[in-house]
Amino acid sequence: MVERSPRERIVYSCAQLIRERGVTGTGVRDVVARAQAPRGSLQHYFPGGKEQIVHEALEWSAEFAASRVREYVEGTPAPTPGGLFAALAGQWQADLAARGFAAGCPLVAAAADIAASSDALRETIRDGFETWLAPLRAALHRMGLPVDRAAPLAVLMISSLEGAIVLARSQRDPAPLAAVAGELRPLLDAAAS
Amino acid sequence: MVERSPRERIVYSCAQLIRERGVTGTGVRDVVARAQAPRGSLQHYFPGGKEQIVHEALEWSAEFAASRVREYVEGTPAPTPGGLFAALAGQWQADLAARGFAAGCPLVAAAADIAASSDALRETIRDGFETWLAPLRAALHRMGLPVDRAAPLAVLMISSLEGAIVLARSQRDPAPLAAVAGELRPLLDAAAS
Repeated sequence: MVERSPRERIVYSCAQLIRERGVTGTGVRDVVARAQAPRGSLQHYFPGGKEQIVHEALEWSAEFAASRVREYVEGTPAPTPGGLFAALAGQWQADLAARGFAAGCPLVAAAADIAASSDALRETIRDGFETWLAPLRAALHRMGLPVDRAAPLAVLMISSLEGAIVLARSQRDPAPLAAVAGELRPLLDAAAS
Repeated sequence: MVERSPRERIVYSCAQLIRERGVTGTGVRDVVARAQAPRGSLQHYFPGGKEQIVHEALEWSAEFAASRVREYVEGTPAPTPGGLFAALAGQWQADLAARGFAAGCPLVAAAADIAASSDALRETIRDGFETWLAPLRAALHRMGLPVDRAAPLAVLMISSLEGAIVLARSQRDPAPLAAVAGELRPLLDAAAS
């Protein structure tokens, strides 16, 4: 386990609270308490207050999601689009089960409660999805998909993954993720062959 | 335009506010103001307070979503699974554009911010999705899908629709809905043939 600095712990804790409660329900005091950070560190590292912390938490989350795509491609001897999607869905199934289905995707949570009221954070959410979509499109292209299929299929993969996470949380059951992975696998692999 | 009673206007206004701000960001005073309802009507019709109003708003929303599925099946001379999905995606594209991309799905918004903290409302969300999934499964079965495909494909349709709505809101662009509808149509129609 890598030791995180107070600054990193604040960003990470904010992301985790957004995953559970949304942005509106996430108070900066709760973030600092969860991060076990000194109170003064908030003002020191985040002069922009809650909006800055939320912005960085969403960026961190998007980078984390993108790293999952790259890890699959680099760590798999014969990567396929359907295999990539199954890997992402499987990671979410494990994460949901480990957290008692209490935490979803922070980008979805933020879109749901503050995209309409903060245009700056809506742009952060949009950029966050693009941080995730770009390596996904690149991976699909490297696996043999033409560019004009890689773009919409990347959107389909992230859309169905995000929706299935919401269904799984509401049911406290990872079955929706297994269902979308099972149904999309033949479609995705056929597109690459 | 049907004239709604104060009670109905409160439930409807609550659903609309949840779509824009989530459950945590929706205050009962704002609901009453938006509904243009007398303040006393809140206590009179909803002795259970905010949780009761949110519960009814989510139930109303789920019934509305289910009615869209039935309307397509009953109003289309030669209904197909891909045509049904395109119709649902098209209705969402129109709704998002009409509301300036400010309002998403209330079930997703509620799952994102209160599913982890209120088990009663999490069950309402789960039941709401089932209210939508049940007629969808039935429609897919009537269009020729075997039961063991109708169930996972209904989950895939709702998952990808919900995720694409979130992407569309973040981009202020209906393109993600067009992308998922375009990619799923051949898959859905092939399953029925």
